[in-house]
Amino acid sequence: MKTIKVNLKKRSYNIIIGSGLLKQAGRRIKSMNIGSDAFVITNARIKNKYGSLLSKTLQAAGINVKFKLVADSEKSKSIAVASEVIRDLANFDKKRKVFIIAFGGGVIGDLSGFVASVYKRGIAYLQVPTTLLAQVDSAIGGKTAVDLTQGKNLVGAIYQPKAVFSDVAVLKSLDLRQLKSGMAEVIKYGLIKDPVLFAYLEKKSKDILRADTKSLLNIVWRCSLIKARVVEQDEKEEKGMRTILNFGHTLGHAIEAAAGFEKYNHGEAVALGMLLACIVSSKLGMSTGNACLRAEKLIRACGLPERIRGVSTDKIIKAYYRDKKFTGSKNRLVLLKNIGTTKIVENIPLEVIEGALKERI
Amino acid sequence: MKTIKVNLKKRSYNIIIGSGLLKQAGRRIKSMNIGSDAFVITNARIKNKYGSLLSKTLQAAGINVKFKLVADSEKSKSIAVASEVIRDLANFDKKRKVFIIAFGGGVIGDLSGFVASVYKRGIAYLQVPTTLLAQVDSAIGGKTAVDLTQGKNLVGAIYQPKAVFSDVAVLKSLDLRQLKSGMAEVIKYGLIKDPVLFAYLEKKSKDILRADTKSLLNIVWRCSLIKARVVEQDEKEEKGMRTILNFGHTLGHAIEAAAGFEKYNHGEAVALGMLLACIVSSKLGMSTGNACLRAEKLIRACGLPERIRGVSTDKIIKAYYRDKKFTGSKNRLVLLKNIGTTKIVENIPLEVIEGALKERI
Repeated sequence: MKTIKVNLKKRSYNIIIGSGLLKQAGRRIKSMNIGSDAFVITNARIKNKYGSLLSKTLQAAGINVKFKLVADSEKSKSIAVASEVIRDLANFDKKRKVFIIAFGGGVIGDLSGFVASVYKRGIAYLQVPTTLLAQVDSAIGGKTAVDLTQGKNLVGAIYQPKAVFSDVAVLKSLDLRQLKSGMAEVIKYGLIKDPVLFAYLEKKSKDILRADTKSLLNIVWRCSLIKARVVEQDEKEEKGMRTILNFGHTLGHAIEAAAGFEKYNHGEAVALGMLLACIVSSKLGMSTGNACLRAEKLIRACGLPERIRGVSTDKIIKAYYRDKKFTGSKNRLVLLKNIGTTKIVENIPLEVIEGALKERI
Repeated sequence: MKTIKVNLKKRSYNIIIGSGLLKQAGRRIKSMNIGSDAFVITNARIKNKYGSLLSKTLQAAGINVKFKLVADSEKSKSIAVASEVIRDLANFDKKRKVFIIAFGGGVIGDLSGFVASVYKRGIAYLQVPTTLLAQVDSAIGGKTAVDLTQGKNLVGAIYQPKAVFSDVAVLKSLDLRQLKSGMAEVIKYGLIKDPVLFAYLEKKSKDILRADTKSLLNIVWRCSLIKARVVEQDEKEEKGMRTILNFGHTLGHAIEAAAGFEKYNHGEAVALGMLLACIVSSKLGMSTGNACLRAEKLIRACGLPERIRGVSTDKIIKAYYRDKKFTGSKNRLVLLKNIGTTKIVENIPLEVIEGALKERI
């Protein structure tokens, strides 16, 4: 078991990483003294698999448990669902001190964190991520949100959890596509910050995709460490340090949006976005060919898509500019100089981005 | 015109108090550089009276304006209304930098602040309070919230505005009952912190109730100053300094709730709550009789209720305990030692509170 502290002064918390953590979570949570009544937000699939395990450990520690199920879909990240969750939370919150456990992937983590941030002007919550993607990325750093029809993550807050419990044992029951999707974020950390991690992934991708415990522990730990250090430097995303975490995401989001959030899941879109960022880097003479080739080879080895299917260049470019306009952000991409080294470049000519897209469509 | 700075480090802002401020607001807002597109949340009555004045000054300063009307009712403080407001805000927010103007009383201020706190993880907003109660109290300090059926203000955040513009000229169009309701909060400030203000109110209550400009300017300024200094010491309501602002509110809320939020408005309930706190203070031998007599006399002079009608002691006590239980707060009241001096007392025997209620029912 490993612990990483996220240093954010009064808002500091630990990320605890292990295999089989869940069984002993009750005692640990009890010792944190954050409340007596756990309101667990999850979906039916996760509750069926791990609900009784979590219930038992909490109850053994004297903590009352109430499960709140939401649909296993991005559609759960809405104000309407948040409102329903808050209503049930207030009904449960009658006697003692309630806190929230976000027990699921990114959707549940984002939704639960948002509910925790606004209920009674903020109550304690824990992240217990059950997907690789959530363990290495979304459960860490306090970004919470729900979507609007006008765009994703438009309503929310930066609101830190009291702890993150990442039990890699639960990743064994993920379907392969979800595991692969998480790998896209893992590859991202290697590319932007950690050549040693990247080399490890090149060697171990097969082990990871068959959910080998030791490999999973290693990658969740290394990625969590990188994320924690970036968040410490720029908690509120005001100073630009968090920007490098967007490597592959800017064009990835455009592909996701252009494809109507159906064809590609988040990790698949990020994999494509990283490949495109590599191509743009090469076109601008920034990246050594070797780094891009290695990135492409690893993405392929992880069974992530290398080519964009069923969406036009035009649609992707439109989605890219719509997003830029709406968020008020600049025409700016995180590009790759070498494995582990990035550069943020502004005002990239449209034809360069179009050229990169055409190579992959 | 007077300016009070609320010192909260990076979240500092000015309260600007004057008569006829609204006419020149555009220029001032422009110079704050908080955005180019103003989304004004208000109700139909205020828009009819002052909408074109606000529109003109903003447009003259080159700021685009969009009004969003909500019902003039506590019912507007709901997640459903907030959700509708956010949807319209996102539709308006297409081109440039949007900010919110809360143009109304406490309901609009609380709702607008909440929307500002969650949209895009927090955007700028201004408080332009149009009631005496909002100018002296709710517009200052960043408490934002919407209600649940389970209780008031259960969903929200502490999120500071970028400025408060208190134009006492708009108070001239308040109906007398609203003005009186605001006076309850003004009397509260005198009782808890400011014997000079209290003596001024004793002398000038008639002038204030006919909305005399000079008197209004004086009381809005003195009350805003007190509120600003308390908020500076305890922004997040973690250290207990904000507790004294609850003088008259604990039992006042119980009366409001027991009467179903219909019979008494907020100020009327607070006036009754202050009288009860005075009686409890006397019963516990804490307060000089003179202070309580002066409080009662001033409350009467301001046309605020002195007796509780149509609600039973039993119902009020039940509402009081329900609230305590739900908020997890202690059996604690702010009591009066003398004009300008309070004491927080815990574990007051139930029979003392019941006794006080019986004297006023």
